[in-house]
Amino acid sequence: MGGDHAPAHVVDGAALALRHSPGAFRLLLVGRPDRLEPELARHGRQPGWEVVEAPQVIEMGEAPNEALRSKKDSSIAVGVRLVREGRAGAFVSAGNTGAVLSASTLTLGRLPGVGRPTIGTLFPTAGAPCLLLDAGASVDCRPRHLFEFAVMGAAYMATVRGIARPRVGLVNIGEEEGKGNEAAQEAYQLLRASTLEFVGNIEGRDILRGTVDVAVCDGFVGNILLKFGESVPQFLKARFTDYARRSIRGRVTALLARSGLRSVLRDLDYQHHGGVPLLGVNGVSIIGHGGSTPLAFMNMILRAEELVRKRLPSAIQEYLQKAHA
Amino acid sequence: MGGDHAPAHVVDGAALALRHSPGAFRLLLVGRPDRLEPELARHGRQPGWEVVEAPQVIEMGEAPNEALRSKKDSSIAVGVRLVREGRAGAFVSAGNTGAVLSASTLTLGRLPGVGRPTIGTLFPTAGAPCLLLDAGASVDCRPRHLFEFAVMGAAYMATVRGIARPRVGLVNIGEEEGKGNEAAQEAYQLLRASTLEFVGNIEGRDILRGTVDVAVCDGFVGNILLKFGESVPQFLKARFTDYARRSIRGRVTALLARSGLRSVLRDLDYQHHGGVPLLGVNGVSIIGHGGSTPLAFMNMILRAEELVRKRLPSAIQEYLQKAHA
Repeated sequence: MGGDHAPAHVVDGAALALRHSPGAFRLLLVGRPDRLEPELARHGRQPGWEVVEAPQVIEMGEAPNEALRSKKDSSIAVGVRLVREGRAGAFVSAGNTGAVLSASTLTLGRLPGVGRPTIGTLFPTAGAPCLLLDAGASVDCRPRHLFEFAVMGAAYMATVRGIARPRVGLVNIGEEEGKGNEAAQEAYQLLRASTLEFVGNIEGRDILRGTVDVAVCDGFVGNILLKFGESVPQFLKARFTDYARRSIRGRVTALLARSGLRSVLRDLDYQHHGGVPLLGVNGVSIIGHGGSTPLAFMNMILRAEELVRKRLPSAIQEYLQKAHA
Repeated sequence: MGGDHAPAHVVDGAALALRHSPGAFRLLLVGRPDRLEPELARHGRQPGWEVVEAPQVIEMGEAPNEALRSKKDSSIAVGVRLVREGRAGAFVSAGNTGAVLSASTLTLGRLPGVGRPTIGTLFPTAGAPCLLLDAGASVDCRPRHLFEFAVMGAAYMATVRGIARPRVGLVNIGEEEGKGNEAAQEAYQLLRASTLEFVGNIEGRDILRGTVDVAVCDGFVGNILLKFGESVPQFLKARFTDYARRSIRGRVTALLARSGLRSVLRDLDYQHHGGVPLLGVNGVSIIGHGGSTPLAFMNMILRAEELVRKRLPSAIQEYLQKAHA
């Protein structure tokens, strides 16, 4: 029931995912049957899905904790409970972000050693993608939290993307030790003393350069960077259109360049990334953008299956245990 | 003597500026005569410049305050003193940023009501440019400082860019009141109670969208955003090159699109912006990027002349006096 175009886009994405990997997983579609059935009917019989009833819906604009208290049988609450009860391997939602975060953290519980679960987002770079975290779950962070984000991010990149020793950088305003605000200065010391492959402070420009595999910052900085990055394609399209209007030559160039530009900008587009995993909870939970398209839902579902198969929560727990030097 | 290619690029930029606006200003080139004279000789006789001797040089990597203490006759110290003494209208440097900031603040003094001077940087947008500040002068900010940045930014956009009532936004992780870290929440209240055209919280995506004329944040967030933005052209070029390698069609497209891409990306390129003004001090001081090209130096000099002509410091002082509701 979550996202700007629920449940139509959710169901369409589910159908795409089942077609993409037939037999790899089953889908429990959690929500109001009266709203889901018409959407399911559009796709005819599909063997891999079933509806789990959840009578209530948490709206996108609701205050998360209040909504979770008053709506015990919302699709978010019911869906996360399926994971805790072992009836589902993973939870995927494009609903109210705060509610998914809270429900996942409270119901699934935090892994031992995790003060704050975190959401990471993959940035495209000149080379391999870079995981930036925290992307908005924790606004005011202590040094200890930044340290945990680094460990969880490294565990993710090692387990899911097969990078043996992920390079970790601390997002800061200069490369030298001692730069930045107080939290960054102390986090630097914690990271330097850890067993992680810590390359030191990195600057804003290092993210797209691909200098590191994991870029660590608090959720205030991370969320602002994430949203800024998401707006680059739209900005470039506007500028190209403007450029095209200025001359015949511009028009021809823009027309010819369109497919190339589209291909390059696609990587910056959130819908192809397919949601961000919540790291540090005892289970797999993936949070999607409110505007998720069917393609985004498909990607989220495929990623969820991958994270379950690769036992991400156990991997994070192991990393946390051995990160201290 | 400041910048990665000093003094060659500085002198070349000075020559470009004099050629661009003959008679509009005179230039005092501050530094070691033995280093400057050979560069000046390359340009032959120029009526509009003269050398002011400063025997010492603060290197790019030096600790700013220590360097200023031990090198009382550095080109930075001497140059700023020329402004205080009224022998120069403005100071321009691409040298050690911290040293230029400190020397300008201490020697010129802060305007009444300014707790922390700030540097702003103009971001290109889908429409008119947006001034983001603080871009790195103040890392840990109190709400009061964020408020001052907003006022000084509005004064700049009104005075220099002729915007009658600049729209001011507070960079945050959500649009609703009450979002963000503690400093942002309190700054929101101060801004709402002011006489500024405060549109409320904005998100990372609103900067390039051109939702506001002035975007306010602390120097930690601002500097990271600035550096991230600066890295976008390089990232896109790498991606386009990669795209071009994949097929004949890609190669042709990339070749044809090159000029358009270059034109669009030029706006994101710091050298065309030509440095950032330090706002809140009693005088005009412009800080350039270490890698400033001759073109960047020319732009900095032209902008300095403009800020003097438009009496920016007085305008900021007036704005500060009437910003309180």
